[in-house]
Amino acid sequence: MAGFFAGRTLDGLGRDLRSGAATAPGLLDRALESIDPSLNAFATVDVEGAAAAARTAGEELAAGRDRGPLHGVPVAVKDIIDVAGLPTGMGSAHFAGHVAGRDAACVEALRAAGAVIVGKTTTHEFAYGASGDTAVNGPSRNPHDPSRISGGSSGGSAVAVAAGMVPLAIGTDTGGSVRIPAALCGISGFKPAYGEIPTGGVFPLSTSFDHVGVLAATPADCRTAYRVLGRPAHGGESRLPDGIRVAWIEGTPVAPDVAETVRRLVPGADAVRLDLPELRRIFAAIQDSEACEVHAERVADAPELFQPVTLDRLRRAGETRGWRFVRAARERTRYAAEVADLMRRYEVLASPTVPIVAPEIGRPDCELGPVQPALLSLTCAWNVLGLPALSVPAGTVRGLPAGLQLVTRAGDEDLLFDLAERITA
Amino acid sequence: MAGFFAGRTLDGLGRDLRSGAATAPGLLDRALESIDPSLNAFATVDVEGAAAAARTAGEELAAGRDRGPLHGVPVAVKDIIDVAGLPTGMGSAHFAGHVAGRDAACVEALRAAGAVIVGKTTTHEFAYGASGDTAVNGPSRNPHDPSRISGGSSGGSAVAVAAGMVPLAIGTDTGGSVRIPAALCGISGFKPAYGEIPTGGVFPLSTSFDHVGVLAATPADCRTAYRVLGRPAHGGESRLPDGIRVAWIEGTPVAPDVAETVRRLVPGADAVRLDLPELRRIFAAIQDSEACEVHAERVADAPELFQPVTLDRLRRAGETRGWRFVRAARERTRYAAEVADLMRRYEVLASPTVPIVAPEIGRPDCELGPVQPALLSLTCAWNVLGLPALSVPAGTVRGLPAGLQLVTRAGDEDLLFDLAERITA
Repeated sequence: MAGFFAGRTLDGLGRDLRSGAATAPGLLDRALESIDPSLNAFATVDVEGAAAAARTAGEELAAGRDRGPLHGVPVAVKDIIDVAGLPTGMGSAHFAGHVAGRDAACVEALRAAGAVIVGKTTTHEFAYGASGDTAVNGPSRNPHDPSRISGGSSGGSAVAVAAGMVPLAIGTDTGGSVRIPAALCGISGFKPAYGEIPTGGVFPLSTSFDHVGVLAATPADCRTAYRVLGRPAHGGESRLPDGIRVAWIEGTPVAPDVAETVRRLVPGADAVRLDLPELRRIFAAIQDSEACEVHAERVADAPELFQPVTLDRLRRAGETRGWRFVRAARERTRYAAEVADLMRRYEVLASPTVPIVAPEIGRPDCELGPVQPALLSLTCAWNVLGLPALSVPAGTVRGLPAGLQLVTRAGDEDLLFDLAERITA
Repeated sequence: MAGFFAGRTLDGLGRDLRSGAATAPGLLDRALESIDPSLNAFATVDVEGAAAAARTAGEELAAGRDRGPLHGVPVAVKDIIDVAGLPTGMGSAHFAGHVAGRDAACVEALRAAGAVIVGKTTTHEFAYGASGDTAVNGPSRNPHDPSRISGGSSGGSAVAVAAGMVPLAIGTDTGGSVRIPAALCGISGFKPAYGEIPTGGVFPLSTSFDHVGVLAATPADCRTAYRVLGRPAHGGESRLPDGIRVAWIEGTPVAPDVAETVRRLVPGADAVRLDLPELRRIFAAIQDSEACEVHAERVADAPELFQPVTLDRLRRAGETRGWRFVRAARERTRYAAEVADLMRRYEVLASPTVPIVAPEIGRPDCELGPVQPALLSLTCAWNVLGLPALSVPAGTVRGLPAGLQLVTRAGDEDLLFDLAERITA
């Protein structure tokens, strides 16, 4: 049972809002009707606040005051991002009853653009996990099979878009947390270059790697949202060269049918090996240290308030030695140079976003071993290196969605969107 | 038995070299004669290389090609700094037989200034210690009482200057390693703001805190040397305001007679408390992690080549957790803001350089507890904060030298030298 926004684009909604075929309050009603509680996409729905915002947007549009492509559009925001007056729950009992005093920077930008914030989406507890099945308010569920994980940590944001509840959602991506659920739920997800969308008002997971990103049905809609949230504004002129060089990145196990299905979309790509397991170790040493620094007092003072798997993970991560952190930071610099060199030969790096399809909720292992590291194995490298990365739908494998990940140099984001639009057209 | 350069200044030597009262080869001979092997200041003396450099300097000066205040002057270089063609021993059996292929950046600058490099000075093993009594080539000894430590880690550099073997020596300072031995040996030592003298070709201890610094009899000679080695060039016009505000920094135990003797030099200073123990913990979490990262493979593969106390220290430091490193880096930013605020009220911060006088070699404890942390307790904060810091002689306590430490904002180094010259005049 697909929600109203399934198959609808921001472009089409914008036309309807301006032609009178739709109104902002009307679209909000469609969003509220489309929310299927059994998928647990939302931790909080802000019926009143959203209604007020939709009314204002409707009046502004009617009066000819046009704030651009998100004006009057229902948007969902991940529940580790502050929205003034709403709970920021972080998926954790630690923040039960915690209400944000002010908007995060990216929420300010959404409001300035006239977007209608429908509510807060379910997050993996403290965004510290890629499965989306660990939260005080329960797992978000994959619309393609509710017994399976949505992926995470921005699981609720992906589910809300994939099930047509909203046309756009905001997430965060520290190791793949926008791209992974986008891929597993069959939508598009984009994390820009490090720092391009400000992280003020976003609860930290690992500040070296935290990115704000966007989730929407198509790469074109991700581009539209990024133009509103990102800095600097991008031109958006298509400049995709005919002879674009794409590398097919290998170096970590991928389920053969996933690899085959996804690679079909980039038929001319040259296979290039990258030491993804080493990049994953660099990621882990830094993320684990930074995450534990954020949570040290909570682990010491109120361990019982964590979900047990989160507590266990934080405690193990807390054992990471300082010199390993320092070594990882040094190695990161080395890989940045290596990949910068590779990107003088290839404009775009491609791979599956996730090497598997969504496993069932509660299963710790998948065909490639433990689920969590498998989920992150193709995405976290691009957080370590801070490069723009886009996941787009790449068809289905065993009836479940697979994603194609495209990566490019900072500043070349439009190239990514152009290529993705051509591939998915 | 004081060496030739005791009581001589760079200014005076420069006049003699230009009037014909001295020659560069003659000064080198005085240096070589002044080296007292029983103090173990030098790990390597480069008789031939120094003679060639002195000959060239002499010919250039005679021909009127004047390279400035270090031209023809004998200088000693700490043995963790590369001098092409000479061993860089690091005070460690790990580097037995290791000969540097090229000059460190600061050595290049010395050579370009026409300085005559006499040899390499004894360093605490890998510069990882403030006592100067732990090295494969034995402890450097305090000229004021050879049964006592020189302080370290630039112990040999301080001894070489204090005993009149050379008028100038180069050292490194990660937590006080220039200022501590300068204070304990009764000379001047200056560490500039972080990054002001390039560290290329210097073996790392803790890259967040490593500084190259200079040791000489007087603050004026430190200023002269810094003008040659530092960037950018400083004007050197005295601009000491009459109403200069000095804070007397307290917050960690100091032997009462040391405090009394040193404070006499800054009679108008206001007492200001700073959480020096907390700054010391920040220092330790970062230094320990960074030092272990440098030495991890040596600790794993050839532990027997370390001096036992160094190995023990590295192993304990290796236990420091990554999240403690991250926390320390964050706290460091907070203290930088707090001290920047303090420095809007005071141009200069003053304290003893070291809270004790030089203990006997081999004693692990002093009147304030364990020797190593006591030695660093007043200096390492200024490495954490990267501020310029100068130690100048402050008289004697129980017959042994005490030092006054003066700290200021980056860019205000000349203020430090001006004030120190007025105080010590």
